[in-house]
Amino acid sequence: MPKVVIVGGGFAGLSAARGLARERDVEITLLDERNYHLFQPLLYQVAMAVLSPAEIAAPIRSLLSRNPRAAVRRERATAIDLGERQVLTDKGSHSYDYLILACGVRHTYFGNEAWEADAPGLKTVEQALEIRRRVLEAFEEAETETDHDRQKALLSFVVVGGGPTGVELAGAIGEISRHTLARDFRTIDPKHARILLIEAGERVLPSFSERLSSRAMSDLESLGVQVWTGSHVTQISESGVEIGEERIAARTVLWAAGVRGPEINQSLGVELDRQGRAIVNPDLSLPDHPEVFVAGDQAHLAADGEHPLPGIAPVALQQGHYLAKKIRKSLRGGSSPDFRYRDKGRMATIGRSRAVAEIGAIRFAGRPAWWVWLVIHIYYLIGFRNRLLVMLQWAMAFVSFQRGARLIVGKRWRFYEDPRPDEDREN
Amino acid sequence: MPKVVIVGGGFAGLSAARGLARERDVEITLLDERNYHLFQPLLYQVAMAVLSPAEIAAPIRSLLSRNPRAAVRRERATAIDLGERQVLTDKGSHSYDYLILACGVRHTYFGNEAWEADAPGLKTVEQALEIRRRVLEAFEEAETETDHDRQKALLSFVVVGGGPTGVELAGAIGEISRHTLARDFRTIDPKHARILLIEAGERVLPSFSERLSSRAMSDLESLGVQVWTGSHVTQISESGVEIGEERIAARTVLWAAGVRGPEINQSLGVELDRQGRAIVNPDLSLPDHPEVFVAGDQAHLAADGEHPLPGIAPVALQQGHYLAKKIRKSLRGGSSPDFRYRDKGRMATIGRSRAVAEIGAIRFAGRPAWWVWLVIHIYYLIGFRNRLLVMLQWAMAFVSFQRGARLIVGKRWRFYEDPRPDEDREN
Repeated sequence: MPKVVIVGGGFAGLSAARGLARERDVEITLLDERNYHLFQPLLYQVAMAVLSPAEIAAPIRSLLSRNPRAAVRRERATAIDLGERQVLTDKGSHSYDYLILACGVRHTYFGNEAWEADAPGLKTVEQALEIRRRVLEAFEEAETETDHDRQKALLSFVVVGGGPTGVELAGAIGEISRHTLARDFRTIDPKHARILLIEAGERVLPSFSERLSSRAMSDLESLGVQVWTGSHVTQISESGVEIGEERIAARTVLWAAGVRGPEINQSLGVELDRQGRAIVNPDLSLPDHPEVFVAGDQAHLAADGEHPLPGIAPVALQQGHYLAKKIRKSLRGGSSPDFRYRDKGRMATIGRSRAVAEIGAIRFAGRPAWWVWLVIHIYYLIGFRNRLLVMLQWAMAFVSFQRGARLIVGKRWRFYEDPRPDEDREN
Repeated sequence: MPKVVIVGGGFAGLSAARGLARERDVEITLLDERNYHLFQPLLYQVAMAVLSPAEIAAPIRSLLSRNPRAAVRRERATAIDLGERQVLTDKGSHSYDYLILACGVRHTYFGNEAWEADAPGLKTVEQALEIRRRVLEAFEEAETETDHDRQKALLSFVVVGGGPTGVELAGAIGEISRHTLARDFRTIDPKHARILLIEAGERVLPSFSERLSSRAMSDLESLGVQVWTGSHVTQISESGVEIGEERIAARTVLWAAGVRGPEINQSLGVELDRQGRAIVNPDLSLPDHPEVFVAGDQAHLAADGEHPLPGIAPVALQQGHYLAKKIRKSLRGGSSPDFRYRDKGRMATIGRSRAVAEIGAIRFAGRPAWWVWLVIHIYYLIGFRNRLLVMLQWAMAFVSFQRGARLIVGKRWRFYEDPRPDEDREN
């Protein structure tokens, strides 16, 4: 029976696996170092204490349990042996007839990787919980801090990067400080917290139209967020950020500024783009390896011959579906046309009831955009259970301004959490 | 204005604070090293992947935000200076006119504290998540393990201690292995997992009647749990447990066997019982210190002159209410009768739809007891939001046999999580 190995249980990998699960005569193995599929577009709401991780995640195993020919292995792929058609993992190896790589991306600090300790990014559940911890703890520490300068630094929040994630994080911190915590402290007034959104380019949300981008900026400002565009961060440390000659004292700095492809791309022997993503053929296959595909954020597919497709969920989902179909056809000796992305638009939320959206030629903002955002995100959430719970949490947060998950749990950590099973680690 | 300092935001501390919050002429300071109140009776459901931490916890701050004279400080009390009437904390000190100590208890390993690394207890959210991680990871690792003996050890779960927590944990692992995971693995069959509940005494649930205790045992057995009574654990290590000459290879061992009073009791200069709990007067005050009270698990109050009151939520709640009333009266120069516990009974669940309950003279088991358990726990959960969410999670878990929070998050840790803020720690 032909073997399909899928590396990664994100949007691309999971939709490929589900598309192939209908096929009778194929063995599927999905490898992921995590045991759950994560609905990444809502991860910032875990960081911002609205949702719990379990509400936007589902075990990969149970999502694929109906098909007895689909196996899920909690392994970390370390390299690909294209000649032998094998995936090497931390626990062994898997041979394949077809391979789908969908490992996603990580944050990059553009050569300043040491900044990560003081400015975590938002890609994993662990990182989201760490960001939640730092933001909530900053207010708690400020309440008991007697030194004025240190208190001010504790109440200063810097978000680096003005893309959708940065805008969503900054807007949410604005809302937390201006609304959620308004009545809860006695020494400090959370309303006086400074929130800075720093963007190197000319405007926030550069992938949106200029009109929506300026609308997003004024929405942010109404939540107390100060937007600094054209500002390059040159240093990040425990005490704050530097932007050239300027210095901002801030205890909480969050990173939403850049991503790079996974290390496994190095073992593919193909050209990588500047972000380390694998440059693929128009059918997502590797040059000279029609049996190996790269999908989702990990791939660089130049759709219009110029810009690569953006690293967003709809691209990954469509590519996963496409590959499932392509492999099913190929098993019957057929061939498929190239992948074509059907652009369904883009959106970003700002705080509790505002958003900006571009759907085809239609551009809109404010409350209508927020409602559309809401409906789409509920619709695409995997699992009825999660949909219901997230709707409820949102409804309650909307009515009460409160956030259901305001818990400070665990210790502060300093570096990217290593998700390897513990036998590979020192402690 | 008289100052009341409350140490601990558990059932006793919080109910005292809420009872006093109505009082106009008193300043309340509640100290807790954590920012949330935790509904401890459902913590095992967090460990067993049914609930998320945020569903059984609520920020202490927002629970007390309505009263501007109630301050919440995230500080850890380290000692009490009874002479100077001061609480010393990691961040400073607080003087008091009335003091309520309600710090709860910790696990004890009866002198073998090193066992904690291999047999975590269940008192904190961090511990619950660690237990969840270990249980879920054991199945994941067993799926990829090729060595037969190691696979068997991975699929062996030992729970030490046959009280309500031990029974609830063992029953839940039985259900997970026999139902939840039944279809999700390809190499292993989770149904063959061994679950051992080890109790030193003659029977499980020793605080219940013999009839209910034997009913609980047969309910556990029907879920595949092997109950070993009269068995003293003499050694716990990474490879498993020893019971005298017997050895059981098990990668997952959970501890539900004993508690000890908090260290702060040492600074009270009063008699402590064998478990290190402070022995208090019938009105919960310390001998010679009518302005200092100890409540909840931290206190030893011999109700009938013999057995101390059990360390359960109803006792703590009633003591908190009692102290609020007593202090309010005392502020007006009045006095109060001694504390009297109104015993509302006890209950424990076994798996998905069974329980045992004793309410006054009524003893019952099975599905009716489970429904009563359900209603009572929903009723006492703090916050409408949590009630609704937990009901939903339970309804869905009941219908689908699935568990909503089956996520493996973070690293395996080895020792009790230190909840101090990070400046006190080395990393």
